[in-house]
Amino acid sequence: MGETSRAADTAGIAPRDEQRRAADEVIVTDPETTVEIAVRLAAASGFDRSSRDDRARWLAALAEAVEAHRDELVALAAEETHLSAARLTGEVTRTATQLRFFAEVAREGSYVEATLDSPDASLTPPRPDLRRMLRPLGVVAVFAASNFPFAFSVLGNDTASALAAGCPVVVKAHPGHPRLSRRVVEIGRSALGEAGAPRAALALVDGFDAGTALVRHPLVAAVGFTGSTRGGRALFDLASARPAPIPFYGELGSINPVVVTPAAAAADAAAIAAGLAGSFTRDGGQYCTKPGLVFVPEGSGFEAALAGALVDAPTQTLLTDGIASAFDSGSAALAARDDVEVVFAGDRATDASAPVVVATTVDRFVAAHDTFLEECFGPLTVLVRYTGDAALMAALAVLDGSLTGTIHHAPGEDVAGLTGALGRVSGRIVYNGWPTGVAIAWAQHHGGGWPATTASVHTSVGATAIRRWLTPIAYQDAPAAVLPPELADGNPLGVPRREDGVVIVGS
Amino acid sequence: MGETSRAADTAGIAPRDEQRRAADEVIVTDPETTVEIAVRLAAASGFDRSSRDDRARWLAALAEAVEAHRDELVALAAEETHLSAARLTGEVTRTATQLRFFAEVAREGSYVEATLDSPDASLTPPRPDLRRMLRPLGVVAVFAASNFPFAFSVLGNDTASALAAGCPVVVKAHPGHPRLSRRVVEIGRSALGEAGAPRAALALVDGFDAGTALVRHPLVAAVGFTGSTRGGRALFDLASARPAPIPFYGELGSINPVVVTPAAAAADAAAIAAGLAGSFTRDGGQYCTKPGLVFVPEGSGFEAALAGALVDAPTQTLLTDGIASAFDSGSAALAARDDVEVVFAGDRATDASAPVVVATTVDRFVAAHDTFLEECFGPLTVLVRYTGDAALMAALAVLDGSLTGTIHHAPGEDVAGLTGALGRVSGRIVYNGWPTGVAIAWAQHHGGGWPATTASVHTSVGATAIRRWLTPIAYQDAPAAVLPPELADGNPLGVPRREDGVVIVGS
Repeated sequence: MGETSRAADTAGIAPRDEQRRAADEVIVTDPETTVEIAVRLAAASGFDRSSRDDRARWLAALAEAVEAHRDELVALAAEETHLSAARLTGEVTRTATQLRFFAEVAREGSYVEATLDSPDASLTPPRPDLRRMLRPLGVVAVFAASNFPFAFSVLGNDTASALAAGCPVVVKAHPGHPRLSRRVVEIGRSALGEAGAPRAALALVDGFDAGTALVRHPLVAAVGFTGSTRGGRALFDLASARPAPIPFYGELGSINPVVVTPAAAAADAAAIAAGLAGSFTRDGGQYCTKPGLVFVPEGSGFEAALAGALVDAPTQTLLTDGIASAFDSGSAALAARDDVEVVFAGDRATDASAPVVVATTVDRFVAAHDTFLEECFGPLTVLVRYTGDAALMAALAVLDGSLTGTIHHAPGEDVAGLTGALGRVSGRIVYNGWPTGVAIAWAQHHGGGWPATTASVHTSVGATAIRRWLTPIAYQDAPAAVLPPELADGNPLGVPRREDGVVIVGS
Repeated sequence: MGETSRAADTAGIAPRDEQRRAADEVIVTDPETTVEIAVRLAAASGFDRSSRDDRARWLAALAEAVEAHRDELVALAAEETHLSAARLTGEVTRTATQLRFFAEVAREGSYVEATLDSPDASLTPPRPDLRRMLRPLGVVAVFAASNFPFAFSVLGNDTASALAAGCPVVVKAHPGHPRLSRRVVEIGRSALGEAGAPRAALALVDGFDAGTALVRHPLVAAVGFTGSTRGGRALFDLASARPAPIPFYGELGSINPVVVTPAAAAADAAAIAAGLAGSFTRDGGQYCTKPGLVFVPEGSGFEAALAGALVDAPTQTLLTDGIASAFDSGSAALAARDDVEVVFAGDRATDASAPVVVATTVDRFVAAHDTFLEECFGPLTVLVRYTGDAALMAALAVLDGSLTGTIHHAPGEDVAGLTGALGRVSGRIVYNGWPTGVAIAWAQHHGGGWPATTASVHTSVGATAIRRWLTPIAYQDAPAAVLPPELADGNPLGVPRREDGVVIVGS
């Protein structure tokens, strides 16, 4: 795919030695200069000309390197994020699994969508020999998340999928874990270098100004972002306003509505309440998939069961002072409203992550839905009491986009209507389970309508996350010598292809 | 897929009878009101709940209806656009072929990307039963083109691909052919109604204000646009600035660079010149794929051959007075520059589409490339004389995004470097041919970097044009009763699927 990269305008940008050294050492000086060096070195790295097999090996090397430094990294992350060693240890495993998963996606090769049509002069217009595939888009900017210091940060999903696609990555560090970010990028660059990959395919920049310079840089071809709706919107606007706009894949706020049907509540309110308590308080409720809005049948005993389940909820210092203070003020404002009733409020004096549950009615929810639909990051959930299908459906009709929608139902119950109502706004529908704990899988989807994501057609988790970093090219009547091997006669690499309209499984 | 549509928020919008009548009759009154009626009726039409087989039948019915009215439509189009009956007759065939092609894409079903993963509790995090597919995004707004009154207008590629996806379409008519647009939408709605489809799945609005209201409408989920860079940029900015931004797929300006190698020119300059003359003057040079910039070896005799081939170029009244006047002033300004030489200029007094060819050198081209890279719509092309590979590559390095890039080379010549240089900016590379006459095919790609398209990752021609109108949904541990048939156990519809990571060809 080498000759076909859009990012490879390397004319006249051979970096000076001191620039190369500076970038190698990830020295962050003036933000604009650092961004300029990192992006130009990434664009000129030749990473986009690597083979899928090489990238698969390099991703595996990154996975091994992260695991080899697990103890050191977990300790550093625990210091900076307050997350537990158990959670962070699991997250390192998740991160390595993601890197290996995208290695497999690269190796398998169907993501390039190799498609071949043979000529037919009898058609209007005539059809020449046409061969199409996807190729890397160029340098990708990745904005790391606060709440996943490994799995959605320097070597997280965005980076893993972009590297798998053949795109070099410049990460904007999250200010919540700066030392960890720097250490991970050092380890990653070493692993790349030792495996024979260009180290410049992975770089780190730091600070607000570096972030905006990155989105504006002419050689940056796409942006991946995980964070707040406000921050994401500002950067999306910047990306869209460029002289040449670029795709901005932002995963922003999500309320993750849950519906408990009367039959489910009647069958086992206590178990569902215990599950909810575990899900919305997990690691301080600091998940993009935290269930923040739960429709429960009026008078079902669910609320008492939930309050009971929360008495012994584990404490968790929140990620940053900013998040803690936003949670304090957000939850206090909600609890003070006239149109809610406080179901549970832990003791904030002894537990910074004391969970908060408020309840309201369908009418009140609909009347003030703009407020109730604002994500409050942290261990808080809003119960909406409903009576009857009509009231429930009216409430679901005002929902905004969300990453997930969850239905707790009894066996055999007809949930087609609920599936439709939640599917209107949510990218993943969960049945009799909880939305936290997002599996790494070919069939995963982690996206939803605005404000869950800026581009509601893409995912940031699962195999198809790679598609964000790809763009098509078609070759018309090309000489065999210029065709990438995926498009060559006889399918020498054995990738799944479409030939004259028919899907052919590779060898 | 019915329950899963995002567009189907129909609560409280059951239209009044007179609104329904108005929309049925396509009466254009106040633009805002018309848009409101058309979009709400489209959203409430239930079209998104149709089966792929039904949509395939409906698209075939549209193809038949267009062909059945061929003579009437060609006459109307000829009056409004000045294009020849021969060209318009061919375009009706092309339009019907496109509709039938997207019927086949819908029927074949791999476009839904059905993907199934079985549960595995041993993973971190555990993997549940996950099933993912693509579903219709919602109401699509289509902005029709001036230069393809059939194939990129009311029932053109954008509409055909959106209907195939299950998205109802509201077309903004192009002012260049208003009566034709109205007649085609009448024929289309009748055909849909007779075939059992909701007529409201196809509607037409007219005028500038209706266009902006359409892009702003909360129930419009995506926009397809073919037109000028200026107009497209304005609407892209509007779509991006919405409270909930939506994807805007614009196909804007394209210069379509061509390189003639010294070996190719030495072998047959006359034949290549004749091919270029035919391609850039075809139907008045009014194609988005018109070759507008041609790199020719200095002193190759190519220019004399080209001038000779143009003496008998057919005349063609341009599409609209606006286009004619922009061509007049644009070509005159270019011809008057100090840094170009006029190679050919037809007699504008006797032929409104008299072709214009100017020539410059690589140095001058690079120095003023912003000007030379501006598309001049109509029968004009710019020759850039080069000597040696280094000069040619330096010139290619300043190119902007284009739909196509073309290489004329000798048999066996190494064109990998040229493929890379043109592939950096162009979505389709043509070898020893011409970019006009875009084939309808699975492997087609009609896209490129800015300003060729706003979203450089998508195409407006070829099978994958359907992907613009789709969004994923994942079902986690879903009861069998809510799953769309494409995701059901045993694959009852026999669509190609991915099961546990392996591509399985359908029955």
